[in-house]
Amino acid sequence: MLIVAERINATRKRIREALENKDAALIAEEAKNQLEAGADYIDVNAGAHPDREVDDMTWMLDVVQDAVDAPIALDSSSSEVILKNIDKVKQTPMINSVTLETKKFDEMKAVIEAREADIVALCMDDSGLPKNSDEAFDNAERLLAALEKLGVKRERIFFDPLIQAVSAEQDKGLIALETIRRIHANLEGVNTVCGLSNISFGLPERFLVNRTFMTLAIGAGLTAAIVDPLDGKLMTSVIVTEMLLGKDNYCKNYMTAFRKKRIVP
Amino acid sequence: MLIVAERINATRKRIREALENKDAALIAEEAKNQLEAGADYIDVNAGAHPDREVDDMTWMLDVVQDAVDAPIALDSSSSEVILKNIDKVKQTPMINSVTLETKKFDEMKAVIEAREADIVALCMDDSGLPKNSDEAFDNAERLLAALEKLGVKRERIFFDPLIQAVSAEQDKGLIALETIRRIHANLEGVNTVCGLSNISFGLPERFLVNRTFMTLAIGAGLTAAIVDPLDGKLMTSVIVTEMLLGKDNYCKNYMTAFRKKRIVP
Repeated sequence: MLIVAERINATRKRIREALENKDAALIAEEAKNQLEAGADYIDVNAGAHPDREVDDMTWMLDVVQDAVDAPIALDSSSSEVILKNIDKVKQTPMINSVTLETKKFDEMKAVIEAREADIVALCMDDSGLPKNSDEAFDNAERLLAALEKLGVKRERIFFDPLIQAVSAEQDKGLIALETIRRIHANLEGVNTVCGLSNISFGLPERFLVNRTFMTLAIGAGLTAAIVDPLDGKLMTSVIVTEMLLGKDNYCKNYMTAFRKKRIVP
Repeated sequence: MLIVAERINATRKRIREALENKDAALIAEEAKNQLEAGADYIDVNAGAHPDREVDDMTWMLDVVQDAVDAPIALDSSSSEVILKNIDKVKQTPMINSVTLETKKFDEMKAVIEAREADIVALCMDDSGLPKNSDEAFDNAERLLAALEKLGVKRERIFFDPLIQAVSAEQDKGLIALETIRRIHANLEGVNTVCGLSNISFGLPERFLVNRTFMTLAIGAGLTAAIVDPLDGKLMTSVIVTEMLLGKDNYCKNYMTAFRKKRIVP
């Protein structure tokens, strides 16, 4: 499992304030803590103020990359923000995100062609969020064709099934799991990724619901997740789940985490 | 998910002592607590002393059925113990268990023919525990044929994939999950059941490993489990997992459990 660490996101109050006050120390600390907790990518989202997001992203990238030597996920809904910052990323960047929406995909083409990158590809088109796994999988197939046409390698594509709240409709969890399963069964070589917080929207004990869903999603084949690696119980779920799915030889990873007191039951 | 409550088992010290001291109050209390915590069946295992197991089972059945009005799982490796007690069970009994081992199956025939019952069918034959999901599934198919020949209805058959320790071999969890998935995909109408404790043998934080495996197993299609319903975190996992798999309309069951303070995060 690849962990994309989500904490440096300016839509969060603490990060927005750090951005506004140019509090580099706080951002640097968040980057270091997340890397230390097991992040594979540090997601950077500077989307607090649209009129200055390009410059905010530049500043945050500098701070994060001064603090840690880690792959960065450039997280913005604006292709301009990504395009103007993509060459500042030291390691191969992850682009978060691309969709099949006509206008958005056209804008993102320049980003995709600018530099080899991992691409988070949301399974949605101009008709909006997928209503079932048929729609989501169909979107994934069309996105794959469009991205491969631009020369993107399969292993660089991370399909996001777009998880919706189970409190809104009881089948939303099942639809996402089914989408993940179908993508891995049919589109060889690609990755899947998801954020977790939407699944538990409107429910109490959201962290519990999120990490239980994480276990189910890994069981369905999920290969990456956009999460908070400082959530010890969530990271524990990832380690235990991978062990139970045969991905931890001699339970070494689990036992190491246990000895380091990182297993939070 | 059907919960087969496992606590009244004379191989546990506390229950063996209660059996030896004819401490009916303790056994009755265990039965009541488990039923109250959500048990669908109360498993009764009197296997402390082989020479008196028939009578011990009779006594325990009386105590449990005086205490609660609930379905009973008659749990013994001895066909004699089950046969001599099966008519004492008030509701339709569950027989725990039958296997494909020639001698054992022949002995159990009399039990199966004696009375309509739910049957826990272990996926093993004379060659021992299955080494992979092909062997386990093949055993399930042959058990199905043998049981149907005796007139057992599919919905009364509970296949147990026989979970082995992931610490012994990394693929043991995956094999069990794959077996559960194949049984539900190919043998329409049957149930699956498993105990959980073997999966975590030799590892620290076993309850955590067990309940994470439970989530994966329900995700693979598991319809029943032999567990301790007094383990609040485990029961929470069951409730949350079922909600995430679309089996809890309007999250009603989850919200009710939350209000009753039964959700243990």
